[in-house]
Amino acid sequence: MRSRTLEGVPTLEYITSNNPHPAMVNFKKSPGSLVFVPALYAVWSDLILSEKESRILEMSVDQQTWLSPDEKSSIREFLKPDAKIDPNLLNDWLSMVRQLKFKEQESLVTTGIRLARTINPTFDIPAESKAVFQKIEEQLGIPKGESPFIFFPEKRDTATSRAGTRIKFDVAAMASILDGNDAEAIQRVKEIITGSEFDYVDTGDLTVFREKVLEWAQTLADKGIGALAYPKEFGGGGDLKAYFAAMETLSYHDLSLVVKFGVQFGLWGMSVYLLGTEKHHKKYLQQIGTLQLPGCFAMTETGHGSNVRGIETTATYDHPSKTFTIHTPNEAAQKEYIGNAALHGRMATVFAKIIIEGKDYGVGAFVVPLRDQNGKTLPGITIKDCGRKLGLNGVDNGVIRFEQVVIPADEMLDRFAGVTPDGKFTSPLASDNRRFFTMLGALVGGRIGIPRSGIAASKSGLTIAIRYGDGRKQFGPEGGAEVPILNYRAHQRRLIPKLANTYAYHFALRYLTDRYVNREEEEMQEIEALAAGLKALATWHTTDTLQECREACGGKGYLWENRIGTLKNDTDIYTTFEGDNTVLLQLVAKSRLSEFKQEFSSMGALGILNVIAEQAITAITEMNPVAVRRTDEEHLLDPEFHQEAFDFRQRDMLMSVAKRLRRLISDGMDSFDAFNVCQRHLIETSEAYIHSIVLKEFRRNVENVSDPACREMLEKLYQVYALNQLEENKGWYLEQGYMEGVKTKAIRKLVNQLCWEVRQDAVPLVDAFGIPESCLFAPIAKK
Amino acid sequence: MRSRTLEGVPTLEYITSNNPHPAMVNFKKSPGSLVFVPALYAVWSDLILSEKESRILEMSVDQQTWLSPDEKSSIREFLKPDAKIDPNLLNDWLSMVRQLKFKEQESLVTTGIRLARTINPTFDIPAESKAVFQKIEEQLGIPKGESPFIFFPEKRDTATSRAGTRIKFDVAAMASILDGNDAEAIQRVKEIITGSEFDYVDTGDLTVFREKVLEWAQTLADKGIGALAYPKEFGGGGDLKAYFAAMETLSYHDLSLVVKFGVQFGLWGMSVYLLGTEKHHKKYLQQIGTLQLPGCFAMTETGHGSNVRGIETTATYDHPSKTFTIHTPNEAAQKEYIGNAALHGRMATVFAKIIIEGKDYGVGAFVVPLRDQNGKTLPGITIKDCGRKLGLNGVDNGVIRFEQVVIPADEMLDRFAGVTPDGKFTSPLASDNRRFFTMLGALVGGRIGIPRSGIAASKSGLTIAIRYGDGRKQFGPEGGAEVPILNYRAHQRRLIPKLANTYAYHFALRYLTDRYVNREEEEMQEIEALAAGLKALATWHTTDTLQECREACGGKGYLWENRIGTLKNDTDIYTTFEGDNTVLLQLVAKSRLSEFKQEFSSMGALGILNVIAEQAITAITEMNPVAVRRTDEEHLLDPEFHQEAFDFRQRDMLMSVAKRLRRLISDGMDSFDAFNVCQRHLIETSEAYIHSIVLKEFRRNVENVSDPACREMLEKLYQVYALNQLEENKGWYLEQGYMEGVKTKAIRKLVNQLCWEVRQDAVPLVDAFGIPESCLFAPIAKK
Repeated sequence: MRSRTLEGVPTLEYITSNNPHPAMVNFKKSPGSLVFVPALYAVWSDLILSEKESRILEMSVDQQTWLSPDEKSSIREFLKPDAKIDPNLLNDWLSMVRQLKFKEQESLVTTGIRLARTINPTFDIPAESKAVFQKIEEQLGIPKGESPFIFFPEKRDTATSRAGTRIKFDVAAMASILDGNDAEAIQRVKEIITGSEFDYVDTGDLTVFREKVLEWAQTLADKGIGALAYPKEFGGGGDLKAYFAAMETLSYHDLSLVVKFGVQFGLWGMSVYLLGTEKHHKKYLQQIGTLQLPGCFAMTETGHGSNVRGIETTATYDHPSKTFTIHTPNEAAQKEYIGNAALHGRMATVFAKIIIEGKDYGVGAFVVPLRDQNGKTLPGITIKDCGRKLGLNGVDNGVIRFEQVVIPADEMLDRFAGVTPDGKFTSPLASDNRRFFTMLGALVGGRIGIPRSGIAASKSGLTIAIRYGDGRKQFGPEGGAEVPILNYRAHQRRLIPKLANTYAYHFALRYLTDRYVNREEEEMQEIEALAAGLKALATWHTTDTLQECREACGGKGYLWENRIGTLKNDTDIYTTFEGDNTVLLQLVAKSRLSEFKQEFSSMGALGILNVIAEQAITAITEMNPVAVRRTDEEHLLDPEFHQEAFDFRQRDMLMSVAKRLRRLISDGMDSFDAFNVCQRHLIETSEAYIHSIVLKEFRRNVENVSDPACREMLEKLYQVYALNQLEENKGWYLEQGYMEGVKTKAIRKLVNQLCWEVRQDAVPLVDAFGIPESCLFAPIAKK
Repeated sequence: MRSRTLEGVPTLEYITSNNPHPAMVNFKKSPGSLVFVPALYAVWSDLILSEKESRILEMSVDQQTWLSPDEKSSIREFLKPDAKIDPNLLNDWLSMVRQLKFKEQESLVTTGIRLARTINPTFDIPAESKAVFQKIEEQLGIPKGESPFIFFPEKRDTATSRAGTRIKFDVAAMASILDGNDAEAIQRVKEIITGSEFDYVDTGDLTVFREKVLEWAQTLADKGIGALAYPKEFGGGGDLKAYFAAMETLSYHDLSLVVKFGVQFGLWGMSVYLLGTEKHHKKYLQQIGTLQLPGCFAMTETGHGSNVRGIETTATYDHPSKTFTIHTPNEAAQKEYIGNAALHGRMATVFAKIIIEGKDYGVGAFVVPLRDQNGKTLPGITIKDCGRKLGLNGVDNGVIRFEQVVIPADEMLDRFAGVTPDGKFTSPLASDNRRFFTMLGALVGGRIGIPRSGIAASKSGLTIAIRYGDGRKQFGPEGGAEVPILNYRAHQRRLIPKLANTYAYHFALRYLTDRYVNREEEEMQEIEALAAGLKALATWHTTDTLQECREACGGKGYLWENRIGTLKNDTDIYTTFEGDNTVLLQLVAKSRLSEFKQEFSSMGALGILNVIAEQAITAITEMNPVAVRRTDEEHLLDPEFHQEAFDFRQRDMLMSVAKRLRRLISDGMDSFDAFNVCQRHLIETSEAYIHSIVLKEFRRNVENVSDPACREMLEKLYQVYALNQLEENKGWYLEQGYMEGVKTKAIRKLVNQLCWEVRQDAVPLVDAFGIPESCLFAPIAKK
């Protein structure tokens, strides 16, 4: 190889067709020379003869004892250093070879001999010479067996080129597995959002966009979707499960609408429903469900988002007048990011510290009017528009300030905290702390709706990116046709595990919904932890997935019309609202630690010893030298292996973080500092816990599928999810000695192979999500 | 702990101040009872007495032989299951304890004895009883030594609370190290962009925004910034290095402006300069530098982005008229995403296949007029607006179609390909292939400007997020003051490694710029690989960093006014344009493989054996049982260890991917398939290679710093970068046996510790970036 130069190469006379080179004349007559034509074409095809190429062919010519000196010298004419060649001559050579029949795997010398036989049918060369000659291919760096493609590039048919889409299962059957018993609610919402009045609008003009979103929300209310979760006596559907399905399905359409819908019917309506009592239900629920009474959920303050217990807005009780006065004592106590506040909200559930007779009873909730019937802000209320945001610009978020706003005491949402007729504080719950968490627990539904919306957005992103990757062709074997980019392994690795994870979270979130809808009181702590953890993982998954989809669609993914950017921006805040993900995962960890402590404290010393002994046995059976090194597929694809590995991780991490905290504290560290030192460890412990549940639910769902083709397909997706997760955590497993390097390498290889296989099913797998084409919208996703 | 219930707890008469409980009367008189007050307050402070708490205290009372039966019975009044307590009584108890002096680490019993002594100064209890009593703290789960904070929460002073900002080095000195000899150019640009005419505008209205960006670009042109890179004879600054510094500095301001600037002065101007010859320079450069002649760079087509060699636009030569006809043969051949095309561009460098006498000579470049002086599109030209995009909406991207547009042959940019006077194709480069890559190589500057712009955007994001994290307080020790969120370890882990990486890429990109500006022709292959690789890694780093910053700022990070969203959206396409990152990293790998092959082929068999032997020696010295298990700080902080580990990884991966490719191909796999199978391996090989260079350059820069405080600081950042990178790849190192679990665990711990330390320097470290406050703009970043 020469260094690249801008100065050009030394000149040598071109051999032109008009002025045939004497060597060429000899060539056409001499079978021995013709033997070299394929090799000469191979080295000259890029118009450049490198020194190395020249040297290899020179040596090869030297060694051919059967060539006459004349033949040798005419071949050498084309091997001079710094020679140039006429492209027309190259074309001549190529045409000569292409007149022969294409033969797979043929070496240059065999092709050359066939060429020589066109003028002398009995021509051959000694076997030793052939053997020597055959080596030049390797020396020239031509991949084994690929010489014929130099002359017949169109014959090249690679595995990569062939790996296109196939249909192995019934897409409608798969869609019905995914929809499950939500199918009716899903269908009902799809019919609405595919109507022409739901055509997307440009999101640039906030005013236009926000009004359009309100209009859409009104249509949903008119069709009874808004009130799905409310009791029938207040005009509702009495079907909480259908409400979640509706929120998820709406997420195939515009996400500002989803959030507007969630604020109105979920946060505002459900806070009245779940924190209030009958008087509030009667007074408000019907109007909320029809959107006659647009409202807000005013919890977050500028100074307190994650740490809601620290909010500073006050609700001060005055017994003579039986009123509460709502007041914002300082700027940090303003209610911020409040959806529906900047324009449309007429009332709000306001969270404030309950002050009775000068004593602070902690956080309570109050219904406070913000605007009159004409939309005019009421006295004492100041609302500032949050303005443009990264996404969700169809939602009118605002900052609310209360200046001594007086409301009747009846407007206190008094299910968990109230005032007695003689003006005393009362609550069915003994401590402010417990009351606070019970109140938040009642609102856990938001932590189900948001991840379900996020996963729906992931489905849209993946549908767009996978259909595009299936159709978009770029690069290919030299001289051959270009190949769909989804046939490339790196591209598969980007999208296929995300697709598998999306299926995994889909089933896990259905499970969470079912648990929540059918909950018993004593399960609440577990369900809250599950919701917090799944919300965190599913929304991070959404952010990651949409980022990959954007990049996987290149410049096309950057255009507004292809929607990935909008989906990405709109869902970006999902990792923050309804609880910041890192904060939520710490809650999960603390909940797990307290279960753990409980388990230990209830079993006494002997019980603890048993648990530790059991752990030791696990270590022995799971970490025996054979298991940690097993690389056979039977083992690696065994669901028991997966579940054991996931469970081992979550249990071991919980145990080790508990021990670590204890050690730090008993060494004299402040417990607050100790929790801080272990913060990441705690977060990872929660992640491991949630993943072990997601795995289990994915598995359970696969096993319940009766359609064999769908089951086989889901089985494979399940394997991608399980093994990809193990690969992501391989550092940990290797550190613990739970796996050895041979095993983690085998897992990586298997994930690659599974992605390669699933690639061919990827398009039907996204089609099974059943996203309406009008909602997908993206021109690059057109079928 | 009881299960949470909405039904309330069984009632028990409240003990009120008006109706003093008899037990309380006894308490006040009995030193023995007073001993129990701190413990009683501790269990009752949340207003709930759990069964466990009751049991523990009961047992403790039983065991106190010195208590009289009366005292025991009055204490037991407060230990009845299902009891309630009057908050006022709790307050009484608290006040009693708070009248004592706060004593650190004091146990509940010792506090109790001090309380008893307020009525009987000589009171004491037997030592055995004390010992028994002291155990209840552990049983109650009160962290060791933290009992006094139950009464004096304000005295709690945790390490976490104290870990605020300090200034250990001179920020101006650090800024000057970062600016280096670009300082003058940086200063010049800063003066311009801090002018009031550079105030940001709302980005919602495309028309307004695009005109504003054009105006800003005009101001830059007027001040000579646009022409910085052009030769002085054409009105330029003759300073390519300053041009890159300008592009970087501009990136503190609006990124649409940066891209508009880059399209006009970089892509359009530099293509004329580097692909054209003197006639083109004379005709165009001056007008381009002043923005009198706005233009485009029309390379990408709808059908061909990454695989530019496949573009289909044709430039057909007609000898009699000495013209080329530019034509778009089909929709996929339209020029897409072309910056400056939708509105302002009057000309374009158009890339098209050169057709002369019916023969295709591969890709060439042509200057083609698009609009007349009045901005009217010329005949044969059709331009469609790309519309709204995820970001960079101040740039008017368009789709261009040419319908048989005739241009004089002189408008062919003929440095690398031209037409002879007799109408023949001519080129100083022998092959189309080589010419194509030489032409692209000439344009490698874009792969320097973009990552530098991306790193500048990362700096803005980090400045905003770190300042916010330093000021924003949330949560804290129970009852104590809230703590800045940057004091939390998980938050540090989000931002500090990104900060260290940003410094690392800063120095690496300066190195790349210097190499490019002072290049020798024979270095080009290496520089191109370096630029491609650094562009990929630095832009991905930018995307990751801005995502972390967004999340780290919670809801505030979602507001337009805080700019992280804009920075994130604008730079999102950086991973795609100037070459898709995954494609670029494959190029780097192929370039590395060819170097590798060269190295081998030039040394012969003996040489190869030597290399392999050397590898084996490395394996022995680096992977000896002591080294793989070393966990002492001296070793882990040793720069030689870092460089060896980084180099080992990049060399081993290169060697192993080469072997793997060879094996697959010799086993009969098509080479195209083999490269596909190894695609991820190739990409990771390139990443490892680039990281080893980044590490080396970071180290070299640290060693050149003379200011001791700055050097110490940079040393620490360097350590974060090095060790965090090793931690990220720990799975690989463990798989290879290069490290054992004890070592990777020690590395993780050390990274945690370093992040904890650097947190206190984080604010001055971002201040040292020297981003103008008016450019930062974000209210949450206000100092």
